Amino acid sequence: MRELELKAFSRGLRPEVVVWAVAEHDGKRSICPLGWTMRTSSSPPMMAISVAPTRYTHELIEGAGEFVLAYPGRALAQATLYCGTNSGRDVDKFAQAGVTAAPARVVQAPLVQECEINLECRLVDSFTTGDHTIFAGEVVAAWSKEEPGPLLCLTDSSSGYEVLLEDPRFTFGSVRV
Amino acid sequence: MRELELKAFSRGLRPEVVVWAVAEHDGKRSICPLGWTMRTSSSPPMMAISVAPTRYTHELIEGAGEFVLAYPGRALAQATLYCGTNSGRDVDKFAQAGVTAAPARVVQAPLVQECEINLECRLVDSFTTGDHTIFAGEVVAAWSKEEPGPLLCLTDSSSGYEVLLEDPRFTFGSVRV
Repeated sequence: MRELELKAFSRGLRPEVVVWAVAEHDGKRSICPLGWTMRTSSSPPMMAISVAPTRYTHELIEGAGEFVLAYPGRALAQATLYCGTNSGRDVDKFAQAGVTAAPARVVQAPLVQECEINLECRLVDSFTTGDHTIFAGEVVAAWSKEEPGPLLCLTDSSSGYEVLLEDPRFTFGSVRV
Repeated sequence: MRELELKAFSRGLRPEVVVWAVAEHDGKRSICPLGWTMRTSSSPPMMAISVAPTRYTHELIEGAGEFVLAYPGRALAQATLYCGTNSGRDVDKFAQAGVTAAPARVVQAPLVQECEINLECRLVDSFTTGDHTIFAGEVVAAWSKEEPGPLLCLTDSSSGYEVLLEDPRFTFGSVRV
């Protein structure tokens, strides 16, 4: 084994499933793509997500006390890049990324029609961890496409995944289908 | 979209990279395979892991205040199943799973020689989320094999991944190589 620089280790931790955090508050809404998410409880079912405090979605989640996690598939690599490199303070990401807001059953934030899976979450707690906030949310409703496809992931070009979009900062791919 | 039962949604959130949490305290050590992990800070670099309080490794992490995260590759599917279905209270998992403890540089817990990546972590904080505890640790040293291979994942048999081990409770696989 060789020791890695601390700024380099994260490139090896692939794949990371891409998740869009969607929040709405006071008539404003946004989409924030994340790679840092995990399940964190079976009963009740809960998800944890790490969001930088600078993100507009951070402010919307704190305001609304709820959020949606939408899981994009292969067709949404470009939309993910768009949402990850623009701010919802300036643009309507649903319109600009070409995706459709669909009504959720329990929470105010919309589902994303084109995503493979959507989870409605009620914020339970939040914790500061270094330069991010962990939002822990209870999953109160869950939705799936009739025949969900592979989830979009952060990958690297050497890992056996099919690369769908390569940008200087991000490589998006999925398992080959 | 169709609504899912809350106990069913998690099967769609694949792949989940498998991570072994390794801890040592008072001369006892154990390995606990996890699917619920994420990065949670860039600077300082931090990882968050969700561990059930019933796990022996939970007790060891709380006692030691540090842990190692070891990322198994394709050859360690069987060892992962062994470590996930036995308790370190009863057996020496390194011996029984046939893996080698290697000295870490900063923490007391050992690295796992056969794993693709090893992260040494110092416990910074812990939070209760439903039926699990989130341990947030600062990555203080990181190691990689010279040529790391694909990481072992929790997958499903319909997702395009190569299935390496199927058990009634778990399906382990990786991207095809």
